[in-house]
Amino acid sequence: MDLWLKTLKTNTPQEGFELAITMSRKGVAYTQPSAEVRDQLRSAYSTDADSLTAASQVIAINFQTVAAANNYWNE
Amino acid sequence: MDLWLKTLKTNTPQEGFELAITMSRKGVAYTQPSAEVRDQLRSAYSTDADSLTAASQVIAINFQTVAAANNYWNE
Amino acid sequence: MDLWLKTLKTNTPQEGFELAITMSRKGVAYTQPSAEVRDQLRSAYSTDADSLTAASQVIAINFQTVAAANNYWNE
Amino acid sequence: MDLWLKTLKTNTPQEGFELAITMSRKGVAYTQPSAEVRDQLRSAYSTDADSLTAASQVIAINFQTVAAANNYWNE
Amino acid sequence: MDLWLKTLKTNTPQEGFELAITMSRKGVAYTQPSAEVRDQLRSAYSTDADSLTAASQVIAINFQTVAAANNYWNE
Amino acid sequence: MDLWLKTLKTNTPQEGFELAITMSRKGVAYTQPSAEVRDQLRSAYSTDADSLTAASQVIAINFQTVAAANNYWNE
Repeated sequence: MDLWLKTLKTNTPQEGFELAITMSRKGVAYTQPSAEVRDQLRSAYSTDADSLTAASQVIAINFQTVAAANNYWNE
Repeated sequence: MDLWLKTLKTNTPQEGFELAITMSRKGVAYTQPSAEVRDQLRSAYSTDADSLTAASQVIAINFQTVAAANNYWNE
Repeated sequence: MDLWLKTLKTNTPQEGFELAITMSRKGVAYTQPSAEVRDQLRSAYSTDADSLTAASQVIAINFQTVAAANNYWNE
Repeated sequence: MDLWLKTLKTNTPQEGFELAITMSRKGVAYTQPSAEVRDQLRSAYSTDADSLTAASQVIAINFQTVAAANNYWNE
Repeated sequence: MDLWLKTLKTNTPQEGFELAITMSRKGVAYTQPSAEVRDQLRSAYSTDADSLTAASQVIAINFQTVAAANNYWNE
Repeated sequence: MDLWLKTLKTNTPQEGFELAITMSRKGVAYTQPSAEVRDQLRSAYSTDADSLTAASQVIAINFQTVAAANNYWNE
């Protein structure tokens, strides 16, 4: 896979949150490499409340890592 | 997306808990950007006990991050 | 919502565990504000083993936060 | 509820693991206070592989807390 | 139960991972003490992808604890 | 099992993420040792959105461990 994760450092918490989203999606992409298949799946799960909650949970876990790596953006 | 997460710092634990709720919902919104669709889904999952427990779990995970960022609001 | 989370500090581990239960329930209450609806749901999920395990898991996650905030009640 | 959690300290890792089991069960008991109902539920979920895995996960989360409280039983 | 968890210390990361597997299985065994029943369940869940993912998750959580106890095997 | 986890140290965050994927798959392989069975299962769960989210979550949990072991690749 191409280089996509050079650093866990971000300038702001929101950029860190968005990095966590990228990491969550990459976790899927390593298992299902076809972007076409992933797009088909997205249309279904994006209207399923429990699937969306599960996606938000993976983001929350990855954000824990990113936030710690940035010392929670303190000073 | 607009700037919505400037800092993980809050004045009180309760504000931190409420930030964790915002983060949990944003994790959903990045995946399902339509507020209209999210509102429709909410009416269903808000009366499903397991869905509510799952939502509470995502909040708990995000609150771990917010609480650590605030050093648990000690002094 | 009223002020319900003033501090993460408790005198004892058990009070901390009970605070974690309150936090878990509040995570639900922010999503489903109706106490009446929540009471109806409780009668169902309190006799479902998997729902009870899921509830216990949210408590465990919140207790991690409370325990860390209290330095695990060491001295 | 009676006093059941006086301390997170244990003499050995195994006692800590067993405390984590107690905490996981108490998380259930606060939600379903009837020991009779819990016993009925146990006979079902103790033969369901996914329910057992879920129970083991709650124990693992609580054990993280107990192990940290005991500094992983180092020295 | 017999003594099975004397220490969280292991010589290598892989031994630590294998200890995490033991802990995950013990979490099941405390709830379902019959080895015969557990063997029957295993034949079913070991061919269910979601059950295997759930089992891997419990291992991952226990490995977090073991790795921290060993200071990540640094020097 | 052969030696597969010599160290948690990696040169870059992305290599760490890929190690987390290996760990997640090994967590499955210890439970289902047959590569043939695992390949059959993969074709099904790789087109199931919820299964993919669950797989991504296990990776996220393992990556927390790897990232901490590498001090988040700071300096």
